[in-house]
Amino acid sequence: MTVASASAVATPTPPPADSQARISQFMKDIQDEICQGLEGLDKTGKFREDAWQREEGGGGRSRIMRDGRVFEQGGVNFSEVWGKQLPPSILKQRPEAEGHGFYATGTSMVLHPLNPYIPTIHLNYRYFEAGPVWWFGGGIDMTPYYGFVEDVQHFHQTFKEICDRHHPDYYPVFKTWCDEYFYLKHRQETRGVGGIFFDYQDGTGELYRGPHADKASATCSREIGNLPQRTWEDLFAFVQSCAKGFLPAYVPIAEKRQETTWGDRERNFQLYRRGRYVEFNLVYDRGTIFGLQTNGRTESILMSLPPMVRWEYCYAPDTDTPEAQLYEIFLKPQDWANWTPQ
Amino acid sequence: MTVASASAVATPTPPPADSQARISQFMKDIQDEICQGLEGLDKTGKFREDAWQREEGGGGRSRIMRDGRVFEQGGVNFSEVWGKQLPPSILKQRPEAEGHGFYATGTSMVLHPLNPYIPTIHLNYRYFEAGPVWWFGGGIDMTPYYGFVEDVQHFHQTFKEICDRHHPDYYPVFKTWCDEYFYLKHRQETRGVGGIFFDYQDGTGELYRGPHADKASATCSREIGNLPQRTWEDLFAFVQSCAKGFLPAYVPIAEKRQETTWGDRERNFQLYRRGRYVEFNLVYDRGTIFGLQTNGRTESILMSLPPMVRWEYCYAPDTDTPEAQLYEIFLKPQDWANWTPQ
Repeated sequence: MTVASASAVATPTPPPADSQARISQFMKDIQDEICQGLEGLDKTGKFREDAWQREEGGGGRSRIMRDGRVFEQGGVNFSEVWGKQLPPSILKQRPEAEGHGFYATGTSMVLHPLNPYIPTIHLNYRYFEAGPVWWFGGGIDMTPYYGFVEDVQHFHQTFKEICDRHHPDYYPVFKTWCDEYFYLKHRQETRGVGGIFFDYQDGTGELYRGPHADKASATCSREIGNLPQRTWEDLFAFVQSCAKGFLPAYVPIAEKRQETTWGDRERNFQLYRRGRYVEFNLVYDRGTIFGLQTNGRTESILMSLPPMVRWEYCYAPDTDTPEAQLYEIFLKPQDWANWTPQ
Repeated sequence: MTVASASAVATPTPPPADSQARISQFMKDIQDEICQGLEGLDKTGKFREDAWQREEGGGGRSRIMRDGRVFEQGGVNFSEVWGKQLPPSILKQRPEAEGHGFYATGTSMVLHPLNPYIPTIHLNYRYFEAGPVWWFGGGIDMTPYYGFVEDVQHFHQTFKEICDRHHPDYYPVFKTWCDEYFYLKHRQETRGVGGIFFDYQDGTGELYRGPHADKASATCSREIGNLPQRTWEDLFAFVQSCAKGFLPAYVPIAEKRQETTWGDRERNFQLYRRGRYVEFNLVYDRGTIFGLQTNGRTESILMSLPPMVRWEYCYAPDTDTPEAQLYEIFLKPQDWANWTPQ
């Protein structure tokens, strides 16, 4: 069955009249919920809030934690902006938005723990409306420095269960999409162990439209078929479930690893690996590049960068070490939800 | 007088028959000369060489110094590559090269000193041939953490004198070009105190061609007119003079500042400012992005990144400090060659 052919572009059904108010409230609520959960985990670190206004319309609240017990540095950002026209990079993907005003809101966060045995974590969910089109995008992915299969399994199984409650095709599609998006081509490595990710979801059942549509569709469709048609309410419910899955997916991992002792060796490896996070965010990440090129609030955009980082020419871990194992097992796409010991 | 109008694109005169051999030899010689000069300055640090081959044709030699007395980390790279077709990003700038094989060679270097009172330094010169077109590009720019007017004056005056020997318009054009190229738009700061920079110089007297031509020409032409027509030999001689100016421009500054004592405050500021170097290289630098996107040797491309870096949300220096002075005076385009104390 062809749900959406390449030639006939389906138009999404209109969103409800109170869509913006509801999403905006949700994005703020999830920022509150996650900040509260992370302060509970950290026990000593507190988020400091900066509220800011955007001249062209809208604003946000950036919350930063520094020098906590668990978190060395990190931020949880909410923003809600509107204006006369989407930037060209997005209009290319959604030409129907041309000539229309736009509304966009989202929550994004990156937390860099101090203990190298606790993974760095990222969440971002966003929503756009512009003329006849609207869409949801975002995801959650985890970046360990030392890999533990049971942690990665827990993380992926949490999101697989959430996805499965909404549609059986969601997890395989959005897990693959995540592996493809958070990929450092110049290093031939994934950023971490992935998670789930999607973009331009408007309920029409298309995986993606725009310049990369062929690649994304081909990669995903061959393996798992098209996505189901969905209403705005279905997708909003799904995004809410994913975002609410963040704390139960991550907090138990951080709690399990927080007492593991570490020294210079682990710290050096963590600082080195953080360099990859910087490379990904500044070279590939659509959100970061979009923000920097369109006069976004630089400090809020770059709060995803780690507090301390190092680069070392031609570093390679010694064989048969946990550091080598990270590259061999954890920085490649794996079927984590169904992992069986080898 | 209109040296080159926008509508009539001049074709460069053909290069000499031995152009590639001569340039390649020069690029290797200047790598040798600079490495020797920097080892002489460092006194304990030595460059370690990695020779590498490129599957599609060509190769290079990367030289890295780590944990020296003066230099915490840095590299001096030579490369010489050829192939069937230039990548699309360059073909856009030089459509005449379409369908022709290409030859490219260059030397590039970035050195990060340990002492925060010694500036980070960058040099890159490159040469391309492809069918009917050839061109030189590159430059030298300096990035201090603590600004000293006399150092910056010495640096700029050295290159002004070199430029003036070749043409009186060179320094003002290439100094302005450098300020514009090494600019972090999202921070509204220059990367450092600049130096000289140009691209696509083929002797036709045009400042630049391609998508940014209007901007570059408008900025420069309004102030200083077009560049003179030049032969291949003229431009090669000019590039040689610039590259040979590197050691006399930089070494006296490093020698003057190497004994200045520093502590946590200066180190913290240096690590923070190094973050800007990373942001520039990964977000804006044409050479870095081009290399990463075209399967270049990643370790050689990213050897420009600093050994240790930090990011801090919303950092701003206290008023009336040397750190504040860096932003107020040194991270803005200034007429350094003719600076008069205020």
